[in-house]
Amino acid sequence: MDSRTGLPVVGMVGGGQLARMTHQAAIPLGQSLRVLVTATDDSAALVAGDVRIGDHNDLEALRAFAKGVDVLTFDHEHVPNQHVRALAEVGVTVRPGAGALICAQDKGVMRERLTGLGLPAPRWAAVSSVAEIEKFAAASAAGWPVVAKAVRGGYDGKGVWMLADPAEAAELIAAGVDLIVEDKVTLRRELAAVVARSPFGQVAAYPVVETVQRDGICVEVLAPAPDLSDEAAVAAQQLAIRVASALDVVGVLAVELFDTPEGLLINELAMRPHNSAHWTIEGTRTSQFEQHLRAVLDYPLGDTSLTAPAICMANVLGGEPGGMGLDERLHHLFAADPGAKVHLYGKAVRPARKIGHVTVMGENMAEARKRAVRAAEWLHKAKHK
Amino acid sequence: MDSRTGLPVVGMVGGGQLARMTHQAAIPLGQSLRVLVTATDDSAALVAGDVRIGDHNDLEALRAFAKGVDVLTFDHEHVPNQHVRALAEVGVTVRPGAGALICAQDKGVMRERLTGLGLPAPRWAAVSSVAEIEKFAAASAAGWPVVAKAVRGGYDGKGVWMLADPAEAAELIAAGVDLIVEDKVTLRRELAAVVARSPFGQVAAYPVVETVQRDGICVEVLAPAPDLSDEAAVAAQQLAIRVASALDVVGVLAVELFDTPEGLLINELAMRPHNSAHWTIEGTRTSQFEQHLRAVLDYPLGDTSLTAPAICMANVLGGEPGGMGLDERLHHLFAADPGAKVHLYGKAVRPARKIGHVTVMGENMAEARKRAVRAAEWLHKAKHK
Repeated sequence: MDSRTGLPVVGMVGGGQLARMTHQAAIPLGQSLRVLVTATDDSAALVAGDVRIGDHNDLEALRAFAKGVDVLTFDHEHVPNQHVRALAEVGVTVRPGAGALICAQDKGVMRERLTGLGLPAPRWAAVSSVAEIEKFAAASAAGWPVVAKAVRGGYDGKGVWMLADPAEAAELIAAGVDLIVEDKVTLRRELAAVVARSPFGQVAAYPVVETVQRDGICVEVLAPAPDLSDEAAVAAQQLAIRVASALDVVGVLAVELFDTPEGLLINELAMRPHNSAHWTIEGTRTSQFEQHLRAVLDYPLGDTSLTAPAICMANVLGGEPGGMGLDERLHHLFAADPGAKVHLYGKAVRPARKIGHVTVMGENMAEARKRAVRAAEWLHKAKHK
Repeated sequence: MDSRTGLPVVGMVGGGQLARMTHQAAIPLGQSLRVLVTATDDSAALVAGDVRIGDHNDLEALRAFAKGVDVLTFDHEHVPNQHVRALAEVGVTVRPGAGALICAQDKGVMRERLTGLGLPAPRWAAVSSVAEIEKFAAASAAGWPVVAKAVRGGYDGKGVWMLADPAEAAELIAAGVDLIVEDKVTLRRELAAVVARSPFGQVAAYPVVETVQRDGICVEVLAPAPDLSDEAAVAAQQLAIRVASALDVVGVLAVELFDTPEGLLINELAMRPHNSAHWTIEGTRTSQFEQHLRAVLDYPLGDTSLTAPAICMANVLGGEPGGMGLDERLHHLFAADPGAKVHLYGKAVRPARKIGHVTVMGENMAEARKRAVRAAEWLHKAKHK
């Protein structure tokens, strides 16, 4: 409890851009988000007022961080699940809890839970040998290639492999990674259904979006998803609500979906604010970051209505060094498009690393998308120190 | 220059709610606002990452704070003008500069400058004796009462007196306050025209608003001002643009206006983000806080379009201790109105002190106003620790 305001203290483990933007949303709620970072120049550490340094893999560091915190939540999935359990056992309020979080940490457990709930997903199997992968491919209508995914630790296309044949399967098995395999689905596009759920059980659903990927990285988000029927949109929202309720998720849940000729299939889950909903900062009345805080604080959730007919978010990816500096680029971008909303994360640049995003609210998607992509391209080309 | 991002560093003198909300707006711009506060529990100190403690009346403290800062700006008008000049003389970029700022610090200088520019204001005079006040009243069509204002240091109705007769004038003169007197105007209502101006000379104007005062304190802001003709709104914006340009203001300028049968008269100026534009955080595409930063950084200014047809901001004033706690009140408020946007400043409560505000975006002003006032009333009644 914050003795000054009488408001509960929220601690977020992780100091990336999600914590940075959560802190931004915490300010109006009267909160001073406490963040556990690994270094003082982490994205959130640069802007938060209550910064603690520690290793999220170290239970003692987590316990020390949790002291004086009323609710503990996460900017990433990397806290070992047994630590999350151990914190709860000593009385720390952890949201989402370990039982939910495991489904965002372990793709095998996630597939098993969702299959048990009868929720739609690509055909899948846990595998530990080439023979098992060959058996999986043989039983598939699609046959090879087969999609292999590392059970733990993948992100932005890392930890996903397209196995062309048994030789490639053998190579991956030899690397000793825990794996599941999945049918390669016929993909029309990817969608995301983002919801937030409170401990009380209230769920607020955001409009369903289309996520545009390049090289496994989300580059654009189109909100609401173009050419999606109301029925399909509601079905996707209901699917996400069902996942959130069945897994007892608290906070934001992003359900990444494959839109296929056979209908919607669940690809991945994330239980934290998610890239596919950054557009909600300006694009809806309650951002996903505020919503996450409201959910973990068990406040009633906020209005998710749109503030414009069509919204596009484009990620700013780090480019090669050289050329015009970021400050100069911002001048040009703001002159070119006074309505583009820029978010920079204060991160050191590596090629293809997400260093920011731009959101544009438009009258129609063609216009919004053109402007957002152009703005992100401007900043991508920037030279960063 | 921030060595990590290559972006200029902005330092803001003052740690109140304006700095707090400016920091919130700084985060997406890749900035880590540096704030000079008087105490670690100042509103902005609770949430900013780069907090320095020092007295804004002390030139040495200001100089130390300005080291490594690319642009210095202000959350209040209390830095002595000669200190602002002294900082500029040693090469600190100060925005707004001393020559502009003096008009927000000294009502005598402000009236003199605006009169010199031929801008509309109540009839006024600088006075230092009862005889001068009597002479002013005698020359007035309105006669007594006469409005007296402290030249320096007034805010929220403090430093303004309604002098009924020469006896009251004598009492005030005896107190030794530097004064101007003004005609008491026939007031239909109060308006505010808020603009931002960059060093390049670009000006962005916000929609003109009506400000509702109670006991000299702004309690509600209605945006855009109801029943204001397009011609009158444009005239008010042009007036504010003219003031900004003539005084060489950089950053946000709020021009408080009296709407009278004789037309618009300038009441006060503020050269920083202002209470009359807090509604812009959600109510326009670019908040006054982002706009102030863009202006002092000499970035092109952002889109000021509305995000809803009618917007009302209501200030949350501190109430008497006792009753339901703030956290519980927030639960009830969020349940009652999922679209109300709450801003709490983390400030200790004193009766009638501004401790936060609520903004509601509505389809019409009657609805928005009803909701905003109800929400602020909920929080006002809260017991605060």
